[in-house]
Amino acid sequence: MNSTPQNPPAPLTYEQAGVNYDLIDPLKVAAQRAAAATAVHLAAHGFSEVKASRGESAYVVDVGPFYLASIVECLGSKTLVADDMHKLTGKSYYDTIAQDTIAMAINDLITVGATPLVVQAYWAAGGSDWFGDAQRSQALVAGWKRACDVCGVAWGGGETPALAGIVEGGRIDLAASCTGLINPKERLSVGDKLAPGDAIVLLASSGIHANGLSLARKLAERLPQGYLTPMSDGTTYGEALLAPTTLYSPVTEGLFKAGVMPHYCANITGHGWRKLLRHPSSLGYRIHTVPKVPPVLQFIQAQAHHDDREAYSTLNMGAGFAIFVDAKDAQRTVDVAKAQGIDAIIAGVVEAGAKQLVIEPLGVTFGDDALNLR
Amino acid sequence: MNSTPQNPPAPLTYEQAGVNYDLIDPLKVAAQRAAAATAVHLAAHGFSEVKASRGESAYVVDVGPFYLASIVECLGSKTLVADDMHKLTGKSYYDTIAQDTIAMAINDLITVGATPLVVQAYWAAGGSDWFGDAQRSQALVAGWKRACDVCGVAWGGGETPALAGIVEGGRIDLAASCTGLINPKERLSVGDKLAPGDAIVLLASSGIHANGLSLARKLAERLPQGYLTPMSDGTTYGEALLAPTTLYSPVTEGLFKAGVMPHYCANITGHGWRKLLRHPSSLGYRIHTVPKVPPVLQFIQAQAHHDDREAYSTLNMGAGFAIFVDAKDAQRTVDVAKAQGIDAIIAGVVEAGAKQLVIEPLGVTFGDDALNLR
Repeated sequence: MNSTPQNPPAPLTYEQAGVNYDLIDPLKVAAQRAAAATAVHLAAHGFSEVKASRGESAYVVDVGPFYLASIVECLGSKTLVADDMHKLTGKSYYDTIAQDTIAMAINDLITVGATPLVVQAYWAAGGSDWFGDAQRSQALVAGWKRACDVCGVAWGGGETPALAGIVEGGRIDLAASCTGLINPKERLSVGDKLAPGDAIVLLASSGIHANGLSLARKLAERLPQGYLTPMSDGTTYGEALLAPTTLYSPVTEGLFKAGVMPHYCANITGHGWRKLLRHPSSLGYRIHTVPKVPPVLQFIQAQAHHDDREAYSTLNMGAGFAIFVDAKDAQRTVDVAKAQGIDAIIAGVVEAGAKQLVIEPLGVTFGDDALNLR
Repeated sequence: MNSTPQNPPAPLTYEQAGVNYDLIDPLKVAAQRAAAATAVHLAAHGFSEVKASRGESAYVVDVGPFYLASIVECLGSKTLVADDMHKLTGKSYYDTIAQDTIAMAINDLITVGATPLVVQAYWAAGGSDWFGDAQRSQALVAGWKRACDVCGVAWGGGETPALAGIVEGGRIDLAASCTGLINPKERLSVGDKLAPGDAIVLLASSGIHANGLSLARKLAERLPQGYLTPMSDGTTYGEALLAPTTLYSPVTEGLFKAGVMPHYCANITGHGWRKLLRHPSSLGYRIHTVPKVPPVLQFIQAQAHHDDREAYSTLNMGAGFAIFVDAKDAQRTVDVAKAQGIDAIIAGVVEAGAKQLVIEPLGVTFGDDALNLR
């Protein structure tokens, strides 16, 4: 067998891989406007929203003694890789898939400074028979519990509907909701503290995490050996894709215990490094050091014929989570992350001036128009 | 055309309609055990779970000044009826479908005494193109907002993934998560106050709500006119099925303002009236008055050849929500509901003795083994 996969004839764009944001975005805008108009209801209970959290990764309400943060997040299409790999290897990957799902919710919730407290499971299967595969079901349960243990959250319960006719037969739609508290209230990080001179610390990713999977799956179809194509480090493409998403809440909790208050955080998910432009202010982000790119992401970039600009605008490229801190706290932030077993680097600095992200080592710049989430 | 549909040859069971709880329940038990073991994590934050909320409709954590309640709930298969009816009538029913989805979460959350504060939307479509139908998308947004307005909750945000390969093309998997507070803490109603002599107040349903739709859809296949079959009140079967689920939080909030503290609540969803047996204690529930059955549920019972036992163990049969209150508060509870435009009756009484539900007017009794949720 040939271990060098045939090169595809042309670059593979994210849109070719099946996700058309142009169709989704008008709905998102309409929903965001309608949602914003409902905030007034909180006053009847003596509460108020933290308006700056609109457009952030989690929604925050001021309930008096502390802030309440909540979120619901979808895993996406990573289960399709797990299902295909199960056919090829006979292994169930749903223990790590569970971690991916929880990571999607937890890693977003912590960006606002929240301690995650309760996770709810949303497991919508294509039919009751999905749950009849005891090995797979038990893997999902065991992985879900382990991820809760890592994050120190209580698994409150959840929903396990059988949705024949809506979810495809043999498939499962996984999501997680998460509720947390920002306590003490000084931990709130919705961006008002972010300022020129702040350091940008990037926490290592474990691989593709759970964003960019549509592209990664499309690519597998082009490879003669598909998911069994060997990577540079000896693992297969499929196994490498299924490395579970890193859970970052042990780092943010560790920072609080160490007395470090992040000024802002960004979870690097869809839109890749453009997520570093999430903060609404006019600020520049100059990256002087990029993290090591996991072999699976190097492989995807090469096989999809993506230049750095395209790759960094779609994939996490080794940076799963960004923490913006006072420059004096930068090294301590790195140390706290490493103490939790998560690699980290001081990657850059926040600057006054036009909103842009400059990745110096790559000669890549993303402007103000690169990310439109609000 | 013949408006009297042909009778089916045999009764249609819920299992024939495609939901096999025997396959799902072992997973649920395993998940519940694993989930219960994670409660210890709350202690690290100085909090603790309200253990009695395990097995209830919402999970409750004691965070000091108040209790925090959270939940995620799936709409189920009601969208399939909306999609079929859209083909037949050209109308979009997604405004009421949005209310159904929110009702699934809100009506569960309030059972523990919580004031719902924040709702998150989970709209997972079979592809980006689902969101390209502007009329349908706008109906979903408008209905979602209106339901939030009725319940006085803030719509925090949500997730609108395109899940081709997991969710079927042209379909959408709808769910809602909800977070609320039990404040003051005396409002907590997880069952410790329930006692013999308490009155059972039943709040009227608007129709099938969002449970029993698998059965209702199967039945439509047997009807010569399908969803366009006329009901006794002149509406079609499809239109009647799509009556939006009643939102009950205005009643529970009204009760609090009126100084009535429910001892326990049960949201009548899957398993129909067997949900009245939800409380774990050994108590009897004697029903002396049953509410009026909505025409669509009468129709389903007749067409599916269900006796009362089968019908009341599957469908809400006119009772969407049960409130157990001190006998002296029973009439006031009815009055508060009616002031919110929701019909209500004092339907029965809680008794000491063996756990059972006796529906006297129908001669139907459900024993301790009729509901196994824990």
